[in-house]
Amino acid sequence: MTVERGYLLPIGGAEDKIAARVILTHFVQRCGGTEAIIIVIPTASEIPEEVGPMYKTLFDALGVQETRILDIRTREDADNPASSAVLEGATGIFLTGGDQLRLATILDGSLTGDSIQQAFAAGVNIAGTSAGASAMSYEMIAAGQSGMVPSPNLVEMGRGLGLTHEAIIDQHFRQRTRIGRLITVVMRYPHLLGIGLDEDTALEIAPDNACQVIGSGSVMIVDASQLLYTDIHEVAPDRLVSALGVTVHILTHGYRYHLDTRQPSPADLTPEKG
Amino acid sequence: MTVERGYLLPIGGAEDKIAARVILTHFVQRCGGTEAIIIVIPTASEIPEEVGPMYKTLFDALGVQETRILDIRTREDADNPASSAVLEGATGIFLTGGDQLRLATILDGSLTGDSIQQAFAAGVNIAGTSAGASAMSYEMIAAGQSGMVPSPNLVEMGRGLGLTHEAIIDQHFRQRTRIGRLITVVMRYPHLLGIGLDEDTALEIAPDNACQVIGSGSVMIVDASQLLYTDIHEVAPDRLVSALGVTVHILTHGYRYHLDTRQPSPADLTPEKG
Repeated sequence: MTVERGYLLPIGGAEDKIAARVILTHFVQRCGGTEAIIIVIPTASEIPEEVGPMYKTLFDALGVQETRILDIRTREDADNPASSAVLEGATGIFLTGGDQLRLATILDGSLTGDSIQQAFAAGVNIAGTSAGASAMSYEMIAAGQSGMVPSPNLVEMGRGLGLTHEAIIDQHFRQRTRIGRLITVVMRYPHLLGIGLDEDTALEIAPDNACQVIGSGSVMIVDASQLLYTDIHEVAPDRLVSALGVTVHILTHGYRYHLDTRQPSPADLTPEKG
Repeated sequence: MTVERGYLLPIGGAEDKIAARVILTHFVQRCGGTEAIIIVIPTASEIPEEVGPMYKTLFDALGVQETRILDIRTREDADNPASSAVLEGATGIFLTGGDQLRLATILDGSLTGDSIQQAFAAGVNIAGTSAGASAMSYEMIAAGQSGMVPSPNLVEMGRGLGLTHEAIIDQHFRQRTRIGRLITVVMRYPHLLGIGLDEDTALEIAPDNACQVIGSGSVMIVDASQLLYTDIHEVAPDRLVSALGVTVHILTHGYRYHLDTRQPSPADLTPEKG
């Protein structure tokens, strides 16, 4: 029997926590509903003592069997076998928002970081919001600025947790006008897809790399596979970058995308009208 | 002998008027330099009595032979043969900023409006900045809002002066985050190209439809010729619009684009480095 990896659920931040809670409910169902055992990792946050319990309350209210907080604040915590042991039996892991560089530099290569990767490979689902979404990719947007037009100075890269190697994930996308920095990184790494997630919007990546949009906003996919030319190799850091032949898709709730074929498709067709 | 139409120079607003004045100088040279006779039409502006003389001072300082202000403020002015006569002998026409709906609804179908079209067809060059750029197209963005993601409510359309039928022109593009409204209109009119001009940036359209970027910002071209799907026909006005398979080009100074072939190309190649 082949073991499938888990589902990956990057969320663009500010997911609804009060009303229909569509994204969080979806994640709970994906993790087994009343049998779900979810581990909240608030390491990205500057206030883990608040954010951890907040998500525990949320997941408990959504009817999971158990929510555990894995409150890793240092590299020493991350290398402690007791931390890693908290993951045992988990069906889902939730990475909170905060600073993705903090999250990645504390976890990456640590005992717990490796355990997260192994758990994911063994079928545990992983959701992450805001910084927790950005940190999922291997090439990670570590920091940056708002702006519509690509420019080298708009973005700094780092190494993420490596849960997907096909894409680079950005968040608060529409709300913070991050198209410029996402196109910049796709020009730098043209083999990778750029995924820009609006707030309260997620792209669920299934084990077979089929994806689906969930939430109230939109997802922008930036695909450079037909790229004709960019001058990013020669422009000064404060100048604008050219980009000829970029393919863009804007997807909303229910729309699908496949990371392998790079094909988008509409939500299930509605009955014919008119 | 075939008469070629003039060059069209839509400018994204806020063109440099103090330092190198690259765009305005280019337009003056295109119109004949010391032999240029330029007609300034401040009809779009709410303060034509200030904007007209300001541009006259600018063009005079750039060494033209003559600058005339054609101060049309009403439809009656526009139908007055004396207004139309001001265009005689012109080598260039300059449309100021302001409100493109004012400009278009005062000029379109009037005697002077028709004379402008005839002059253009006979080889007179036309530049327009901000509202004056938007008003050049046949399908015109009349008004709208900022935003990154397409949505029907972001934009209202109107009828422009019809100097180009291939494109829809938007301005202050990066500075006012207008990608959402430009993608919206291209979804509504998928056969038309969307051209988004940053401030202090122009796209010169030659009589053969070859284009060149001039200025300090960038030009975004939105091309729906490979469009796979959009739901704009069925979404409510306040909802987000999907757009699958949109091609985007980001061009900077010196880059070229051809409206007929829809092919972008880099600026003239620099000597090899490294």
